[in-house]
Amino acid sequence: MNERILELFEQSPETYVSGAEISKRLGVTRTAIWKHIEELRAEGYTFEAAPRKGYRLLGKPAKWQLSELLNGMRTKVLGQKVHIYDEVDSTQTIAHKLVAAGALEGTIVLAEKQTAGRGRMGRSWHSPSGKGIWMSLILTPRIPVYFMPQLTLLSAVALCRAIQKVCHVEIGIKWPNDLLIHGKKVSGILLESSGEDERLKYVIAGIGISVNLLTEDYPEELRAVATSLAIESGIEVSRESLVQAFLLEFEEMYALYLEKGFAPIRLLWEALSVTLKRPIRTTTPTGVIEGFADSLDDSGALTVISPTGERIKIYSGDVELR
Amino acid sequence: MNERILELFEQSPETYVSGAEISKRLGVTRTAIWKHIEELRAEGYTFEAAPRKGYRLLGKPAKWQLSELLNGMRTKVLGQKVHIYDEVDSTQTIAHKLVAAGALEGTIVLAEKQTAGRGRMGRSWHSPSGKGIWMSLILTPRIPVYFMPQLTLLSAVALCRAIQKVCHVEIGIKWPNDLLIHGKKVSGILLESSGEDERLKYVIAGIGISVNLLTEDYPEELRAVATSLAIESGIEVSRESLVQAFLLEFEEMYALYLEKGFAPIRLLWEALSVTLKRPIRTTTPTGVIEGFADSLDDSGALTVISPTGERIKIYSGDVELR
Repeated sequence: MNERILELFEQSPETYVSGAEISKRLGVTRTAIWKHIEELRAEGYTFEAAPRKGYRLLGKPAKWQLSELLNGMRTKVLGQKVHIYDEVDSTQTIAHKLVAAGALEGTIVLAEKQTAGRGRMGRSWHSPSGKGIWMSLILTPRIPVYFMPQLTLLSAVALCRAIQKVCHVEIGIKWPNDLLIHGKKVSGILLESSGEDERLKYVIAGIGISVNLLTEDYPEELRAVATSLAIESGIEVSRESLVQAFLLEFEEMYALYLEKGFAPIRLLWEALSVTLKRPIRTTTPTGVIEGFADSLDDSGALTVISPTGERIKIYSGDVELR
Repeated sequence: MNERILELFEQSPETYVSGAEISKRLGVTRTAIWKHIEELRAEGYTFEAAPRKGYRLLGKPAKWQLSELLNGMRTKVLGQKVHIYDEVDSTQTIAHKLVAAGALEGTIVLAEKQTAGRGRMGRSWHSPSGKGIWMSLILTPRIPVYFMPQLTLLSAVALCRAIQKVCHVEIGIKWPNDLLIHGKKVSGILLESSGEDERLKYVIAGIGISVNLLTEDYPEELRAVATSLAIESGIEVSRESLVQAFLLEFEEMYALYLEKGFAPIRLLWEALSVTLKRPIRTTTPTGVIEGFADSLDDSGALTVISPTGERIKIYSGDVELR
């Protein structure tokens, strides 16, 4: 039925189609039409609804433009192989399967929509159709599993710099790898790894960026804590340009890291951090810790100074800025 | 055909059956019989072959005794769920599938035989039927991925102590986790991990112990470098007792580690090491390093002092004692 409704709108571009007419031509009730329009909105179509005039189709969901994406790619390895899907449970799940099937470093997976997008600590990630970058990047770094947290921080630095360059917004990193604009989350990164003893076998970086979502695309309960690049910058952002910019930043950071180690990445991370030198509260697997976020150590752990002056290292957990 | 040959031997226990008789009763050539006997030997049956008399069945392959194993288990969590298989490609592969299906911490997988047993760094592991402990142990420690190498060393300590208690042989650990008796390898440990950012999701410890293999069970090329507990101790070792002893040691070490951290484990590892305070050569992903193995650091890395006095940390690689 959704396809037949879309056909009707496409027969009359730019003009209003009244609910009565749709109802008559397709033989369904006005309530059913309203329900179908809402479903189409969830898929990324935008409609204007005007009293007494009916509905007008304003925009179709964005689709990944593969040739545009590949033509503008300035990287040597990352993003040279691209897998694009309309709808997946999670791009991470697809990427794990691709690795098992022999996919090489740099391979990326993009989806218009995720039905079960994953965030950190088993949380879900809101990934509506056509509005964001829901991506997985396959890496096979020859580094010990010991250095895994450093790669997490590197990913945040690369993404933060790419967003700054493409969108010119003020963006910062909340430890370890959430990106915030005006205190609201705009992007999350999840690195899944597979190791063998002290060696990493592979890493899959899951990147979620809320690009062109509008306020109404967020469920009520997320609006106070989540935002998008379009909301914050006031312009629609090209997803292809942002993926290209991110992969280029990542490739440069990654080369720097493999050559010079974590020190330069740490400096860049510190410069972009909104966590350091502030009072924080963090919930770790072993309890709540309150204190002053002092610095990052060589392993990527956050050093927190407790009210009694004790230096505590936080390897894992959620940070709340106070 | 192998089953029919076995039936013939079981009809005449302790006595010789001539090739001519088998040939006549089963209607196959003498060459075919010899081939079938060799296949049965590979499965763990032992035969005596005497000129003019024929073959005599001496022993059947050992089978895991589940009730004996469970009755003697003195652990609280580890080994409370046991999956036993006759033949698998690798117990690690089975364990990964069990985790995906919701298996809990402490679950173990045992196989009589592995057709594609895995060792460190993509090597194969010789796992003939009924002669060894080919085991995987599922763990879900709430520790950062950062500490993974410590768990590798802990596993070696637990296994080394269990073998000392059950077999009374002089055994030592070659960094990071190979067990040697008289310089020959008797056991290997491979820890496969799955991580999410800085957190470990699960670890599967793969344990291979050459228990009752005899010299003739090893391919020619392995005899100079590999040995078994039976060869070294001169007695047949109960696999069930050794699994029980290992899981008990592991559970105790693991509790100590989660409570007190790596310091006590490090002391135990150092006491059992055959690598420390010796000249070594190691091949790392980035090249060959020669020097003096000085100590273990807090992350489990080996500190090597180079001929020029430089202190080099080895996170990954193979160590050769010089």
